[in-house]
Amino acid sequence: MKHYLDLEDLDDAALARVLARAGELERSPISDALRSRVVGLVFMNPSLRTLASMQAGVSQLGGSSFVLTPGQGTWQLETRTGVVMNGAAAEHVREAIPVLAEYCDLLGVRCFADGQDLRHDLADPAIRAMAEVSSVPFVNLESAIAHPCQALADWKTLDDLEVPRQGGRFVLSWANHPKALPLAVPAAVVAMAARRGMDVTVLRPEGFGLPETVMQNAARLAARSGGSLRETDDRALALAGAQVIYAKSWTAPQFYGRPEEEAKHRARFPDWCVDPSWFEHTTPNAHFMHCLPVRRNVVVSDAVLDGPRSVVVRQAGNRLHTQKALMVELLSAGGKG
Amino acid sequence: MKHYLDLEDLDDAALARVLARAGELERSPISDALRSRVVGLVFMNPSLRTLASMQAGVSQLGGSSFVLTPGQGTWQLETRTGVVMNGAAAEHVREAIPVLAEYCDLLGVRCFADGQDLRHDLADPAIRAMAEVSSVPFVNLESAIAHPCQALADWKTLDDLEVPRQGGRFVLSWANHPKALPLAVPAAVVAMAARRGMDVTVLRPEGFGLPETVMQNAARLAARSGGSLRETDDRALALAGAQVIYAKSWTAPQFYGRPEEEAKHRARFPDWCVDPSWFEHTTPNAHFMHCLPVRRNVVVSDAVLDGPRSVVVRQAGNRLHTQKALMVELLSAGGKG
Amino acid sequence: MKHYLDLEDLDDAALARVLARAGELERSPISDALRSRVVGLVFMNPSLRTLASMQAGVSQLGGSSFVLTPGQGTWQLETRTGVVMNGAAAEHVREAIPVLAEYCDLLGVRCFADGQDLRHDLADPAIRAMAEVSSVPFVNLESAIAHPCQALADWKTLDDLEVPRQGGRFVLSWANHPKALPLAVPAAVVAMAARRGMDVTVLRPEGFGLPETVMQNAARLAARSGGSLRETDDRALALAGAQVIYAKSWTAPQFYGRPEEEAKHRARFPDWCVDPSWFEHTTPNAHFMHCLPVRRNVVVSDAVLDGPRSVVVRQAGNRLHTQKALMVELLSAGGKG
Repeated sequence: MKHYLDLEDLDDAALARVLARAGELERSPISDALRSRVVGLVFMNPSLRTLASMQAGVSQLGGSSFVLTPGQGTWQLETRTGVVMNGAAAEHVREAIPVLAEYCDLLGVRCFADGQDLRHDLADPAIRAMAEVSSVPFVNLESAIAHPCQALADWKTLDDLEVPRQGGRFVLSWANHPKALPLAVPAAVVAMAARRGMDVTVLRPEGFGLPETVMQNAARLAARSGGSLRETDDRALALAGAQVIYAKSWTAPQFYGRPEEEAKHRARFPDWCVDPSWFEHTTPNAHFMHCLPVRRNVVVSDAVLDGPRSVVVRQAGNRLHTQKALMVELLSAGGKG
Repeated sequence: MKHYLDLEDLDDAALARVLARAGELERSPISDALRSRVVGLVFMNPSLRTLASMQAGVSQLGGSSFVLTPGQGTWQLETRTGVVMNGAAAEHVREAIPVLAEYCDLLGVRCFADGQDLRHDLADPAIRAMAEVSSVPFVNLESAIAHPCQALADWKTLDDLEVPRQGGRFVLSWANHPKALPLAVPAAVVAMAARRGMDVTVLRPEGFGLPETVMQNAARLAARSGGSLRETDDRALALAGAQVIYAKSWTAPQFYGRPEEEAKHRARFPDWCVDPSWFEHTTPNAHFMHCLPVRRNVVVSDAVLDGPRSVVVRQAGNRLHTQKALMVELLSAGGKG
Repeated sequence: MKHYLDLEDLDDAALARVLARAGELERSPISDALRSRVVGLVFMNPSLRTLASMQAGVSQLGGSSFVLTPGQGTWQLETRTGVVMNGAAAEHVREAIPVLAEYCDLLGVRCFADGQDLRHDLADPAIRAMAEVSSVPFVNLESAIAHPCQALADWKTLDDLEVPRQGGRFVLSWANHPKALPLAVPAAVVAMAARRGMDVTVLRPEGFGLPETVMQNAARLAARSGGSLRETDDRALALAGAQVIYAKSWTAPQFYGRPEEEAKHRARFPDWCVDPSWFEHTTPNAHFMHCLPVRRNVVVSDAVLDGPRSVVVRQAGNRLHTQKALMVELLSAGGKG
């Protein structure tokens, strides 16, 4: 029985299989692959694409799904071990997950970062505690430091756009935002891009460098794939010749868990909003990517989002195809009869 | 590809087809018309009938559906164009709707009035902004100024009850309520009743006259259908010979966006609660209609609601049959393979 | 047409039939028994197991379901009769339930105790008011004083574990908790255990004796089944020779509706947390049961929950099998074509 907590949980052969099947499912979306199967979806945080693409995808494969939202319609869940549960959480995931596994053939769970302690969140303890006690395949629908379904969709999008693996020039750029956001997406994107073999630049202002473990992991993947990785705050240098600008806001690691100081620091960078001028020295047909949701005219201007460079809807569409392929992959190796 | 934002989006032939099919689906509710189809439902406001009848209806037609609730389990959505998104809304409908259209064969969205500016709400900008960017059929599940699924169900209910088109005497009466309510239902009802060819009276106390554009539209429809339209605050005059009393509360347009003044004005009319005395001079078998939810003993007395005149449950039942027929109509003209 | 408000709504033959079918559905979970059927689920209170097992179970039987959450995505519902609805509730169950019955083949509703007035809650007026106006089979998914789906699952669990009916030694023990909890589960468990014919002990500290009507009902059932019932605060006496310890917290009836006094009284009993020492004088293989959610290290220690005595996940799994069997039972006797 397989879990999918991180893109690394798919080896190269499995990844190729999933991407190929995603392409087939895009062309021919209806199948019986999940006939009579039940998928349980647990959202500890808001979702639009993930909830909709998982529910639609399961249906198109002939299965069914249900949604739980702890803290709203469902009990708030405790993830820490050994704790005396006299606080707000009424149930521990050590009961909740095994119980749901009694009802389901596959579980998908979203559980964002606490945002208090960087080292804690980098270890991704909550999602790992849940996956550990699941007796059915378990899919990470975004955790403290990973968003492997986004990574899969983005990989397919780059394939669709024929951005080359070797020699593709990919820029992950920090962008402005009214809030301090988690590190899951940038960590997922930089690792995906490095593993894909591209020349990856992380462009970010002072103080927004990604955590060392995230960069070290990406550097290791780049070395394995024949790609490269660099980090800079020099926008002109980063964007010259880029084929892709992938924008995303994230919190400044050095102010992790201290939102007021972070906001003060962040306020220095209002011009980190991707507008047409960012594409002046990229390749002529460079693409704009973002995982969504995106704040218009804060992260990226209307002119870019509404123009032909933007592939954000295609990225979101690929969430559907790749997650369907992933579920088929995970269930072909286990689950209930 | 067709959208359904207003009853006027169905011409007379399409309306007749939908009503006929609704009758068939009432007699024989199960079909495969939506087999393998996915319907996405977005509720920016509460719902009981609409959510339940849409989900049940899609299932009975062999399809599947999912529900998103922006601001609860899903990101709060921005509908205005050109805005700098540094407020509460994390996502714009210009991304959200095209993304959902990637996953779905049909979208249904509920988005009530802002309740701040009457002219703004009368133009129904939010639902129109969403429909405009939808590449799949889009159904208005109640917007600022329209509730066309209610209109369809009410039309069928009047047919079921054999209230005549020409010469049917239909009274839409304002009723008391603890809150200032939107204008969507009265606008939908008066237009439906006028288009159906009945003699329509809007009965309301001083200050609760429907907006001019709503009345002008209904008058135009009445002229076309051979019906008539009048407005009065004289209850005896309005109810004499009526075959239907359709009760509904709505806000006083002159106090739109000023709820405290509105409440003070509204407090003058506590006796606008439909009780058996209202039926003294109607036709003997006159019916009581309401779109629900209804506040008992504020809008209408228990004696009326629990008695044989009330057809509110039939109206709600017709939401199911007519919406199923509508979806079949919209999807027979477009959507994904 | 049948309702299921209490375990007593199944006579001995029907109960045997449901338990037998639950066993079959456990071995062979997929069927077409609910093909084209729609089940409406209304949750006025949080749920994990009930929502998930109902939705998964309906799917495994070939049907579909939807969920309404009054007060969140759906209007807040009024259950009292004759009231002037000028408060928070926008809709009365006398409309809501008949309307939902228009859309569904079966309804399941959760509606917890008000927790204000013990006599009121013991009469279970809200769930009874709803069931009364339902024209389709109606399942109580936990009400003020009953949780008959839990009772059914627990009965099957005891059968699975081969705890004997006659002579089985069953202890329902009060346990500590940070909050005053409803009486529905202990009332359901003590009645189930008594009806099953076991020797039942209710173990609880001073002030936590179950209400007289609950105990009288259980005593009547014990008398009929050849079982026995006693109540004590002597832990050693209660646990000697026990085959099952079923832990559950509940409010002190004498402080019902006065949570601050209740909390003060409850604070005297922090050692009512089931730990391995509780099993020193039970039978060697005695089981630990709980309905979940459970607060670890408050109600029961990690050592018990993570050890081999705990059957809480099996209990929860049996919610699925028994509810599926129950729905088949109820629908085989009625519902729509």
